[in-house]
Order: sequence, then C-alpha cells, then structure tokens
Amino acid sequence: MAGTDRSRAGASGGPAIILVEPQLGENIGTAARAMMNCGLGDLRLVRPRDGWPSDKAIAAASGANIVLEKARLYPSVPEAIADLTHVYAATARDRGMVRREVTPRHAAAEMRAWLAADEPCGVLIGPERTGLLNDDVALADTVLSVPLNPAFSSLNLAQAVLLIGYEWFQLGDDTPAEQLALGHSVPANKEHLLRFFEHLEEELDRSGFMRDPEKRPSMVRNLRNLFQRAGCTEQELRTLHGVVTSFCGPRKRKAAE
Amino acid sequence: MAGTDRSRAGASGGPAIILVEPQLGENIGTAARAMMNCGLGDLRLVRPRDGWPSDKAIAAASGANIVLEKARLYPSVPEAIADLTHVYAATARDRGMVRREVTPRHAAAEMRAWLAADEPCGVLIGPERTGLLNDDVALADTVLSVPLNPAFSSLNLAQAVLLIGYEWFQLGDDTPAEQLALGHSVPANKEHLLRFFEHLEEELDRSGFMRDPEKRPSMVRNLRNLFQRAGCTEQELRTLHGVVTSFCGPRKRKAAE
Repeated sequence: MAGTDRSRAGASGGPAIILVEPQLGENIGTAARAMMNCGLGDLRLVRPRDGWPSDKAIAAASGANIVLEKARLYPSVPEAIADLTHVYAATARDRGMVRREVTPRHAAAEMRAWLAADEPCGVLIGPERTGLLNDDVALADTVLSVPLNPAFSSLNLAQAVLLIGYEWFQLGDDTPAEQLALGHSVPANKEHLLRFFEHLEEELDRSGFMRDPEKRPSMVRNLRNLFQRAGCTEQELRTLHGVVTSFCGPRKRKAAE
Repeated sequence: MAGTDRSRAGASGGPAIILVEPQLGENIGTAARAMMNCGLGDLRLVRPRDGWPSDKAIAAASGANIVLEKARLYPSVPEAIADLTHVYAATARDRGMVRREVTPRHAAAEMRAWLAADEPCGVLIGPERTGLLNDDVALADTVLSVPLNPAFSSLNLAQAVLLIGYEWFQLGDDTPAEQLALGHSVPANKEHLLRFFEHLEEELDRSGFMRDPEKRPSMVRNLRNLFQRAGCTEQELRTLHGVVTSFCGPRKRKAAE
C-alpha cells in the first residue's frame, strides 16, 4: 500500500498542493490554473467551505479542468498529508514558533531532490482570511515564506500557489536567461553583412556624407558597430539593401558611371 | 525637463508597470496589489477600456490604494514610455519577430542595474485577451517571457505583474534561503542540552530501557543525535525535562535512593 501511495503522489510530476479549508470556489479554480501554469497536478482539498465539486471553481480555472477533476477531497490535514514524507506550511513570517523556514526558491530545490529520491512532498496553504492554524503548521516540517514587501505581503491563494509553482517550474526549465529569438528568420552570415556595409558606404561616399577623409574611418566604424550590434538576419539585410537602393537608386548605377 | 522626468520615473523605487488597454477595472486593482506586494509604485495606464478612476479597481486592490492613486493615464504607448530608457514587452513566446528575449529573473537583474545608473525602465503588459500588439512590441527593446508550462502558459494581468515584481523584489531582499525562525525563543546552549541528555539517560538506565550494556552506547548516541538535530531552545529543554519528570517522578529521587 505504501508503494501505491508513493506512486500516486509521484504521478503528478510535482509536489502536492494542499488547500486547507479554502473558502471560495473561485480561488480553488484560480489556484488550479496557477498549478497547471507550473506543471503541477496533485491538488488536495481539505474541507472546502462551499462544497465540492464547484462550478465556480471550474469557471475560474480557465481550462485547467484536469487539475480540478483529479483533485482529491480529505476530511482533515493529517489524512491529506498521510502519504507524504516532507510537508511545508506556507505562512507569513513570525508565528512565534521555532521552525525551520525557507524561501520558495530553496523549497523548490529541496522538493526536486526529494521527488527524485521518490520521497513525496507537498505544501499546505491555509484559508483565505486567516491562513493556516498553528496546529496545522505544527504538522509540517518546514515553514515556507515568500519574501515580499513586509508592509504589504498578503497574497491570495492563487498567487501563493503561483509563486511556489513558478520556482518549482524554473528549476526544471532550460529557457536561456537571455536569447535572441529569431522567429523563422536566419541570422545573416558575415559575408552578407559585409556586402551590405560596402553597399551603404559606397552610397555614402557618393552622397558626400563621408567627404571628410579624416572622419571617414570613425564614421564607418560607428555605422558598422551599430549594425553588428543589431544582429541582422538575412531578411533584414535584404530590407536594408532595399532602403539604401530606394534612396540612391539601384546599385548597378556604379558600373554605369 | 528630462531631469524632471527621470526623477519622476525613479521616485517609485522600481520599474514602471505599463498596462496597455486593460479591460477590467478588477484586473487593474489586482495588478496594483501585486505591485505593492513587490514594492513597485509606478503604475501607468494606456487607455483603460472602462475608464479611470475605477471603483472596481479600488475594491480589487485590497488596500494597495496608494498605487492606484499615483497611477498615471496616457493616450498612447509612445507617450507612456517617453521618459524611459529601457522598455520590456511582456509577451508569450514566438511572435515570429527577431527580438532579444529574457526571463523575468534576467530582466530583474538588468533593471536593478539600470535604475542604479539612473536609467528609468518599465514593462509593457497588453490587454487581457490578446496581449500586446506587434506594433507595441516593436516599441520595446526586449521581450520578457515567463518560462511556464508551454501547454498552458497564459497568465492574468495580476499574475504577470506578480511574477515580474517578485523577481525584482527577490534581488533586493536579503532573506536567507533557509533559516531557523526562533520566534521569541533562545536556542539552548550545550551545557543545558547535555544536562537534559543526562537526565534522560539516567531515567532510562533506571527504567531498564538501556539494560543491554552492548547496545547502550549506540542507543545513547541515537537519542542524542535526534535532539541535537531538532535544535532545541531553552524553553523546549524545560518542557523535555518536564516530560521525563512526569513519567519518572522528580529527579531528586536519585539522591533519595
């Protein structure tokens, strides 16, 4: 049975989100949406005030129905966390309790490690107005607190779930922090870029823009730098050639002169 | 004038959040709440559909009224971003445009550096259903994309603002990733901890629990390890002494025997 429980908890591919006595169906729905945004699937509900299932939850989930359909209902926190090995309690700081306390980012790293070791884990999140009872916090190993503006730190259910899930998702995601998105374009090679530079400079020589021979080298350098920095694509080079040509006439004029 | 604009943009202590044609007042309110959660104060609105000011925005802001009161209204995106030096466009991926694209975490680091250099910056966020127009994206330097479940990545306005602001706030926050929150308690010193170990072991010797002399050393070690790991406070040690005494009677019995 323990084996069954474990695989059940692990099947979602993420930590369980356990909403304790959530009040509004809407908030359960938006929490489910936030879970699905972050690839989380194991939603557990302890005594939702307005009953379950909830049409309001479905309406608010904006398509995250699968999370709601798989949600499981429990009569108490101990039953909701029975199969878990590690449990966090999401609360604001300063309960006057002696607890290990971590940030969502740190919790995400721990949860990744635990799930990789087949140790199911989850996060308890309390009711909208009051948050978790201290007795529920005492059932968790660790307090999870989101560092936010201390003068204004309260989050609604979905936002708490989103920040916890967001950190979880980031750790498994390989999006580069910075990249050049190319759409369907091909970055230009240097031969083509240099051909454009020559086209431009040839026309600027002709137009008289670079008539001062002392300033010419630095003007050439500055213009080349600008276009290098922009990281042109092949399509953009064709457009730039066209711009120069539209100002100055077709390039073959040179041969004609 | 430029100087005035700069100080105006910088006064908020964070990047501007520019909502382009937001539809629902509620969403402006929850976005303002998310901004205040993250210490952001410069909200700009471009043609909010349902007019401004908005009672629904105030009701949804849950107390973040100051952000709404300071919000500024603009007739167009160019006017809303005129005083900014760096502008991000928050969009889902894959516009088929050639754009530099960053994560919220990377953007947060860049924005911290720019604001430190007195270069105002901001983030454009589009209307609820459609997101930003490509023409608005073309007014920004960089695309800001939140890495999320690619099969389900749409966020509401407030959640997009929250994730961008959250990353901004984390970079300026010094909450330790992991800490032992002590409430008002004092961690026990080792003399007091050892005194409890001795009390416990004395009573376990007396009760016969550790009667096997070969096993005694490892049992002592295991129990000591457990309480070391828990990181007891002075108050908790007093409680533990009380637990042992309540089972075994007052400690002075030993002297009486």
